[in-house]
Order: sequence, then structure tokens, then C-alpha cells
Amino acid sequence: MLNELKQQVFEANLALVKYDLVTLTWGNVSGISREENLVVIKPSGVEYEKLTVNDMVVLDLSGKIIEGNLRPSSDTPTHIELYKSFPSIGGIAHSHSTYATIFAQACKEIPCFGTTHADAFYGNVPLTRFLTKKEVEENYELNTGKAVIQRFKKLDPNTVPGVLVAGHAPFTWGKNAGDAVKNNLMLERIAFMALHSLQLNPKLKLLPKHLLEKHHERKHGPNAYYGQKNRR
Amino acid sequence: MLNELKQQVFEANLALVKYDLVTLTWGNVSGISREENLVVIKPSGVEYEKLTVNDMVVLDLSGKIIEGNLRPSSDTPTHIELYKSFPSIGGIAHSHSTYATIFAQACKEIPCFGTTHADAFYGNVPLTRFLTKKEVEENYELNTGKAVIQRFKKLDPNTVPGVLVAGHAPFTWGKNAGDAVKNNLMLERIAFMALHSLQLNPKLKLLPKHLLEKHHERKHGPNAYYGQKNRR
Amino acid sequence: MLNELKQQVFEANLALVKYDLVTLTWGNVSGISREENLVVIKPSGVEYEKLTVNDMVVLDLSGKIIEGNLRPSSDTPTHIELYKSFPSIGGIAHSHSTYATIFAQACKEIPCFGTTHADAFYGNVPLTRFLTKKEVEENYELNTGKAVIQRFKKLDPNTVPGVLVAGHAPFTWGKNAGDAVKNNLMLERIAFMALHSLQLNPKLKLLPKHLLEKHHERKHGPNAYYGQKNRR
Amino acid sequence: MLNELKQQVFEANLALVKYDLVTLTWGNVSGISREENLVVIKPSGVEYEKLTVNDMVVLDLSGKIIEGNLRPSSDTPTHIELYKSFPSIGGIAHSHSTYATIFAQACKEIPCFGTTHADAFYGNVPLTRFLTKKEVEENYELNTGKAVIQRFKKLDPNTVPGVLVAGHAPFTWGKNAGDAVKNNLMLERIAFMALHSLQLNPKLKLLPKHLLEKHHERKHGPNAYYGQKNRR
Repeated sequence: MLNELKQQVFEANLALVKYDLVTLTWGNVSGISREENLVVIKPSGVEYEKLTVNDMVVLDLSGKIIEGNLRPSSDTPTHIELYKSFPSIGGIAHSHSTYATIFAQACKEIPCFGTTHADAFYGNVPLTRFLTKKEVEENYELNTGKAVIQRFKKLDPNTVPGVLVAGHAPFTWGKNAGDAVKNNLMLERIAFMALHSLQLNPKLKLLPKHLLEKHHERKHGPNAYYGQKNRR
Repeated sequence: MLNELKQQVFEANLALVKYDLVTLTWGNVSGISREENLVVIKPSGVEYEKLTVNDMVVLDLSGKIIEGNLRPSSDTPTHIELYKSFPSIGGIAHSHSTYATIFAQACKEIPCFGTTHADAFYGNVPLTRFLTKKEVEENYELNTGKAVIQRFKKLDPNTVPGVLVAGHAPFTWGKNAGDAVKNNLMLERIAFMALHSLQLNPKLKLLPKHLLEKHHERKHGPNAYYGQKNRR
Repeated sequence: MLNELKQQVFEANLALVKYDLVTLTWGNVSGISREENLVVIKPSGVEYEKLTVNDMVVLDLSGKIIEGNLRPSSDTPTHIELYKSFPSIGGIAHSHSTYATIFAQACKEIPCFGTTHADAFYGNVPLTRFLTKKEVEENYELNTGKAVIQRFKKLDPNTVPGVLVAGHAPFTWGKNAGDAVKNNLMLERIAFMALHSLQLNPKLKLLPKHLLEKHHERKHGPNAYYGQKNRR
Repeated sequence: MLNELKQQVFEANLALVKYDLVTLTWGNVSGISREENLVVIKPSGVEYEKLTVNDMVVLDLSGKIIEGNLRPSSDTPTHIELYKSFPSIGGIAHSHSTYATIFAQACKEIPCFGTTHADAFYGNVPLTRFLTKKEVEENYELNTGKAVIQRFKKLDPNTVPGVLVAGHAPFTWGKNAGDAVKNNLMLERIAFMALHSLQLNPKLKLLPKHLLEKHHERKHGPNAYYGQKNRR
């Protein structure tokens, strides 16, 4: 059942390790089959070295486990909430990658200072508000998803493929699980460079808008000319 | 004698290297058999590349060598003192991991700025006072242990699994030697992120308390739901 | 056709990965045959792990593809423009190596603070101005090349083998593709050390001129005595 | 001739790479036979990947090449000068390891902030003055050695096994070539931690003197008890 998706999600979880985005078990990746409305996600707290494709957990959009012997990631309700609200996305990656997490902890959005950022994110990387005590007690992970969606009221998840959860860490997404992990990696690099750019020039201004638009368009716009036609 | 414990402690010492927590021979891990009141610890100054399981040294709680041809770690009296005072712990790791050591050198506790910290440590990572000249001359390593215990008068070693020794470096502990090393790694990541969070926002406030509690509880509380039941 | 050059350029592209100068596909290296006026360059957006020597694209100096089934790097017009204006160079490397990119984003030239810098660059690493909206719309990549050339009006590309493009990232060059990548690596190390030197001493002065000259001369001058005669 | 020493020096040069202390060819290690008054050193500008034990160059203390087909390191006169003035040392390592070089560039001595530092260096890591224009023109490398010796007028090279050359980079030494490289590595870690300790606490005071002395003594003093007797 969903063998191809399970393989994709399994490999995307291992890519978190390959790209050095996780420490121990701090992260998880999921993917969704939009046809069957089923989500595949990493089991909770399992070490990446011991992870197998058969450990992946399959759930429906109500959070009911359809297949799998292990508990799903404790962040599963956040993933499901995002899949429900962002119909164009096919995969989600959550990590505590250090520099993105530093911005999340410091409660700072990541300003767009360069074309590397513009290639991946159209404008600032947004930050959610903190959840209230009531929201945490009620359903922490579900309400984390809702806080992300609230922050995206005026943002497009297709051009802004990720978010910083205040005090916590990043979530990124993409057209599939592998793509979500690549956006997680890009976010980490962007955060690293933004922090040090501010160190070098604390009054640094944003990248001029015509450069932001140009770089985003040449990779993602209707007339994009970056990469190979057949691979896009 | 104590073959399983010696193997565990040996592997935990190598994990210090695997997680990039040591330079040269700057670190040591021990484990205790509570049934036999015997401690197993790395020999002093032996290179990790040449270390074998049979190099592990076995001591009783008076510091007497029971088995082993090599001198035990020079920090052994600190380990023994902690085992005596913290009856619930089964392993101790000492490293000079760079960022935790930076906080120890700078004589700063590590504030809890995010959920990654809350997952591992309930509140600040504490710092000891400096030893006096007399304490150093009398018995440096033993009194280092006593200074840690003094700092923990109002702290619970089960929810705060580590400490920074002023001017020196961290000690962490856990239910066994491997667990102690994992807490050493988490402490290093927490220190790294705290330092850079302060760089980004020098007036950063602590993580709201309801988030600290939630994250600690979901991993370590009586109703913890992180990870797999059978593996906890 | 141009088999040796294609092999050189292919290997130089892989050296970007080996020296940890690229993330994902953010970078490209080219080489030129001055006899045939043909440029060999990496294809656009192809993952380094999947890259083969036969993927290299051959173009003439008008930008026409002479050989190859894939689109050339989107930065190709910048490379060609530099080859036209800097007749002594044989290879060009473009990366988003993090610290050089941080200086480019922060719109700061890299001051010469030490002999490591002097070994590679004679004086500051220069920075271009931002392109105007008109220049971006007209031909972004070509005009990036023109902005570099404009910045070099009073500089010698033989003693200053690279540049920071404002808001974007570095381009470096050398006598061949491999040399251009080595200069990219040296630029990255120089940028890293300059940023942290400024952190340690915000009022740091430039390296005294007689040391800058000595170090540059002993590696690159007519009486250079660094390295082996037969390898230079 | 001197086969064992050549092997030692060769391996110590490779250790610079293993410990990540060099970029490209920026570094060199030598060793001396005090019985024969001959120095073995790395050849100049040869890539570490291609280096063989037979590439090592043998010189006498006047700088005359006794054996070897390649030019010795351009820094050879500095090495020889140090061997002449510091009769107890058996090996010298020069690198541009990044953090030690940052302190050298920033013209700052490295203060002793912690026990890790005290384990390796008794007190500050010293810094030379800049050479004058005349000294550079006359004999740059020889006069670099003389400036180091001048700085050590009141220092003991046995308890302070290295120096920062202003604007340039570190030289370290030890009882043999391998030991010199280990001191180079320790210096790099010390520099890294000192820089970040100052970031965390710009008014940080030195480690109390009784702790500095205790840590140095337990490793290097007449009653040292760190490590194994037979290995010291």
C-alpha cells in the first residue's frame, strides 16, 4: 500500500541526515497522496540509523492510523493541518536545523538579504506567534498547525515554502517529501548567511525588490529558465 | 566481570568521537553497576583510536581499582562523587565540547530559549562556582564533584541532566553511559543555539513557561507521548 | 571535441563539492579554449551527484551552443562576458560559498587583514554595484558581467582573481578551471577569517603594505620562490 | 638516511590534514635530529594528497640541502632559527588554521579563559610584533624566526608551545613533529573557544591563577598524574 510514497518519505527522512539537518531524532518528514487522502510519516523517536521503509506510518486526514506498527511522529497533527489548508503541497519537513532554529528561538523573521534567499523564498521567511497556554493545553501540535495557517493568511505557500514556529523550529514544504527537505536545507543556509550578514552589517537593508523578483522568477516563474526543461 | 557494562561504557566513549564532542583525549565516560557498586571508566589520556574494551578500568566507590591495568581518568573522583549523591543516574559523560565549554569559560548559565532546550533540560543549564585555592590543592577532582552537588541543592538531576563547571567544561549524566553521551550532545547543540540566539537578539527573553513545561512533559512526563512505548 | 577541456571543467565542478563550496546546485565552473574561442560550462540545475563529463555544454563566444544536449548554466552570459574582457584567464568559478556570499550580501569588500589573503588577492576583494532595474530586465546575466568589468577598470584580474557581486555571490577565475576553483576556496577562507577578525577587533587596520607585497610576490612575482619550479 | 625521522615528519604533515588544520598547501611540519643537527621538512607548495615520504627535504642548520629533490618549505629559515634558539624542541608545525590565524590577523594574544587552554599553554598565547619593511626585505623568513625568539625573551618554550606571528598565522612546537601538530590543534581549539567566550562575555576575566597552575601541573608538572606513566 502506497509503496512508492513510503519509499519517497523514507528517503526524504534519510536526506535530513545526509544534509546534516538533524541531531539524534529531532526531525520528521511526511508526504501525502492527494488521490487517496493518506499521509505517510516517520515514526516518533526512532533513530535514523535504524529506520526502515516499513517503519513509515500511514494515516488518514482525521489522524487515524491506517497502516504501521509504530506511533507516528508526535508532530503529526501539525503536518495534517498543513496538508488540509495548503492543497498544493505534497510533502512537509520538520527539523531543528541549527540556524533556522536560532531565528525561531530569537523570534526573528529572516529578512531577504541576497539572491540565494530569493531563489528559494519570495521575501522574508515568516514567523508564527507563540501559542497561548490554553492552545498548548488543548492540543499543542494541532494548534501549531493553526498558528502557521494564521500567519499565511496573506502569504502564498507556493512562493514561501516554509515557516519558523516561534520558540521552536522550522517547518518547510514542497511538491513532495524530497522537495520539502531541499527547502529545509535552503532555509538553513539562508538563516546562516542572514545571521552573519547582520553581524557584518547590523543596518543591512533588504535586497532591492527588482533583484528579488528576478531571481525568484528565473527559477520559479512561468518563464523560468533555470535548470533543464525535462527535469522541471 | 561486568562485561556488559564495560562494553556499554566503551561504546559510549566512542560515541563522544562519533558525535564530534572530543578533541584528542579531552573527555571520558563512565557507567555504574548499582547492584555491585562498581564504576567502569575510560583510562586516562588514552587515544580514542587505540582504545579497546579491555582498557576500561573498574573501581569501587572508594576509588580503589578492582580491575584494569591502566590508570583511570584523572576525573574519576568527580564521577564517583556524583554517583554517590545522585542515586538515580547510571552513566556520566565529561567532554570539552566547544560551545558548552564556551559557556563554562564565560561563566554563564545557558538560558532556555527554545523547545530543543526544553526537550532535554528543564530550565537553565546550571553553572558551578569556581573552586577556591584550598579546594584545588586539597583534592581538585573530588571537590569539583562537591561543587556540582552544592549547585544541585535545589535542582533535580533527573530533569536537569548536566552542569557546567566554571572555567572548565560540562559534565552530563543519564540512565546509562550512552544516555549520558546523548545528553552531552544535546547540551552542545543547546549551547550553540543559545550563543547565536543571543547574537541575533541580545535582549532575548526565556521561552514562555507553558511551552517549556509542555515540551519537557511530552518527552519525559508521566504521560509522555514522544517516541515508542516499548523503547522508552 | 575539446575532450581534455571538458574533463578539466567536469573535474573542477566536482572540486566545488569536494571543497564544500556548493549547496545543492548553487554553483558552476567553466573553462575556455583560447585557440578555438570555445567555452565549456556546467549544465544548469543538474545535481553534482548525477553530473557526467558528457553533460558539459560547449558554446562559442556569441553564446551559441556548439555541443551538448542540456541547457548551459543560467550564468553563462556572465562567464562569456568575463572571458571577452579578461584575455589572460582560462577558467571561471561561481559559487554561493557561504562567507564570501555573506560579504556580497552585506555589500562589503573584504579588507586584506593577513598574509593568507595577500597570498591569494593583492589588496581588497572588490564588490560590484547593484544592477539597476533596467539592467536586470534587459539582460541580467550579461549585465552582471559588465558590472564586474566596470569594477575592474583600475584593477588587474591577474592579481585580483575574483569579485563579489553585490547582493549575490562571488565569481573567481584563474589560469584554468581548476585554478578558478582554488581561488574560490581561498576567497571563502579569506572571507571567513576577515569576518571573525572584525568580530575580535572591529577597528582592525589593514595588513601593512610591505607584508602584503612580500607575500604576494613570494607566490606570484617574477622572483617567486614558493612551490616547486617545475610545477609553476 | 634519517628514515625514521622522515617517516615521522611525513605523518605529522598528514596529521595537519586529518585534524583539518590546513587548506590546500598552507602549512608545513618539520622535525630535527639533535644528534646529527639535521632538519627534515615538507617540500614547498606540494599538495598533501600527492605527498610521499621521499618528498621530505633534509637540511643542515645553515639551510643547506643535504638530501631531497624538491625545494624545502619557503618557511624553512623560520623553522631553523627556532631550532637553534629552543634547544629542547624536536618538531615544529606551521599552519593557517582559521581561528588561530584570526587572532594573529587581529593582532590579539589569546587570553587563558579556561582549563582547556591551561592544559596546553601556561598563560596567554603570545603574539610577535610586525616585522619592519627592512626586516622583510632583508630576509623575511629568518627575521620571522628572530621576532618569535625576541617575544620569548621572558617566556619558556616548554610551557608555552606556540606563538602567533602578527598578521600571519601560528607556529607551534613540541618534543617531536607529531607533538607539534597536536599543539597546533589545541591552539586552534583554544582560539575558537576564546573568540566565542569573548562574544558571550566581552568583559571576561582570565581563569583564576590557581586553576591555571593546577591544570598545567596535572598534565605537565613533575607530579603529573594525567595519562599513563609508560606513555608519557
